[in-house]
Amino acid sequence: MDATPGRLAIIAGSGRLPAMLAEAEPDALIVAFDGTEVSLPEPRIQRHRIEKLGGLFKSLKQAGVTRVVMGGAWARPEISPLKADALMLRLAPRIMQAIKGGDDGILRLVIEVFEDQGFAVMGAHEVRPDLTVAPGQIAGPKPRSEAMVDLPRARAILDALAPVDVGQGCVVADGLCLGIETLQGTDALLRFVGETPPRLRGNRRGVLVKWPKRGQDLRVDMPAIGPQTIEAAAKAGLEGIAIAAHKVLILDRPGVEAACTRHKIFLLAEAT
Amino acid sequence: MDATPGRLAIIAGSGRLPAMLAEAEPDALIVAFDGTEVSLPEPRIQRHRIEKLGGLFKSLKQAGVTRVVMGGAWARPEISPLKADALMLRLAPRIMQAIKGGDDGILRLVIEVFEDQGFAVMGAHEVRPDLTVAPGQIAGPKPRSEAMVDLPRARAILDALAPVDVGQGCVVADGLCLGIETLQGTDALLRFVGETPPRLRGNRRGVLVKWPKRGQDLRVDMPAIGPQTIEAAAKAGLEGIAIAAHKVLILDRPGVEAACTRHKIFLLAEAT
Repeated sequence: MDATPGRLAIIAGSGRLPAMLAEAEPDALIVAFDGTEVSLPEPRIQRHRIEKLGGLFKSLKQAGVTRVVMGGAWARPEISPLKADALMLRLAPRIMQAIKGGDDGILRLVIEVFEDQGFAVMGAHEVRPDLTVAPGQIAGPKPRSEAMVDLPRARAILDALAPVDVGQGCVVADGLCLGIETLQGTDALLRFVGETPPRLRGNRRGVLVKWPKRGQDLRVDMPAIGPQTIEAAAKAGLEGIAIAAHKVLILDRPGVEAACTRHKIFLLAEAT
Repeated sequence: MDATPGRLAIIAGSGRLPAMLAEAEPDALIVAFDGTEVSLPEPRIQRHRIEKLGGLFKSLKQAGVTRVVMGGAWARPEISPLKADALMLRLAPRIMQAIKGGDDGILRLVIEVFEDQGFAVMGAHEVRPDLTVAPGQIAGPKPRSEAMVDLPRARAILDALAPVDVGQGCVVADGLCLGIETLQGTDALLRFVGETPPRLRGNRRGVLVKWPKRGQDLRVDMPAIGPQTIEAAAKAGLEGIAIAAHKVLILDRPGVEAACTRHKIFLLAEAT
């Protein structure tokens, strides 16, 4: 990073990450698209329409912004072509192409567009490296050896899916795959696992592996867990969670550790 | 098939397939493991404990059985080692190994064991070829061209999963993966898809692809759809379903066609 880095803009989605990024750089400009719920005071937020990217870039430059970080969750935006500004119209063909290519396609395009405009795009883990962890046991009880057999299987399933741009999470119990994360996210996956009929589930518990897609650009859609992930895992009857060291954000680590202790759920970080 | 084939035994799971197989061969012996719900009159069923495979094989041979077909759905059985007979004890190490290898592992072992005992193991599609279909449109409206883009993406996702022995079904809408079938089956997958929050789903409908795993032995766990699959797809808001020609069973084709017409859901069979 430059010795005197320019101002940071946080493109804020929903969830608690934007506020955590803002803590690290109190001077940061907070930007959000119309319609996004952001957990920061509205007066701090500069709002833009997704159709007016030209206007967004202009106001970022006027505010002295040289670095941009995206944080939080987004629903895929509905774009009204009638409201598009000149820049957005020029981008339209690339956007249409990216939409067909899965989620990472559109996110990669967002990075490209910011970089084309001269901004440095950072990952949340670069702004807040303290939100990731080194390999090792992070919280909860020591895993049983049986659980340690399910972890590599869950990772193999996610690895298999990487080329088709699907899957940041997978639950495996006794070798059986009980769920794969899709668009709906980790909490929905864990609810689904928890609804497995007893005649299929038996007395199996299972583990969640939360991992970036192989080859994923961590500057967008970086996987994250928080206390609600642990609560959801407990409700789903799981015995533990493994995350990728340095590549998964832990939002509210004390809350995560307390939930792991309370529910006797192990949390491991494994080397990537 | 032999000119004078020996008697057929139907190893019956739950669902309507066992009765459909019995229709094709009224002379067939119906066998079921204790605890399996079978939709045939109980007096027609010869019951066995899963732990007493030696006894099962003996009684099949006494009844003149030379061919075996498995049909229906099974929960993975709980096996009580204390009740195992001599044959079952000899098989124990292979069973333990197979259990770790995912669902296909245990099913492949079942076939091997029957074949070791001299039985010919048939697929349900061989006993009832009329339950599968040739490529073409089977029912419902003509698919929109947008849906035809989602079908190959869903197939690519299933193909990617085949090496890790997961996935006979996948839902894709506008390029986005909304769900992947795991142990819980197609109906659970479709319920999950139907619960996608509107802010993520938007006005996307989506398609289900139902396909055997690449390299799957069709003699066990052959994919199947029935009228309830169409009903579940309608509830999930889908616009259509594609199945593998000749490799997916349609249980109750008139019922399936009527449901497709009623809910305006297309059903295609595609060449494999």
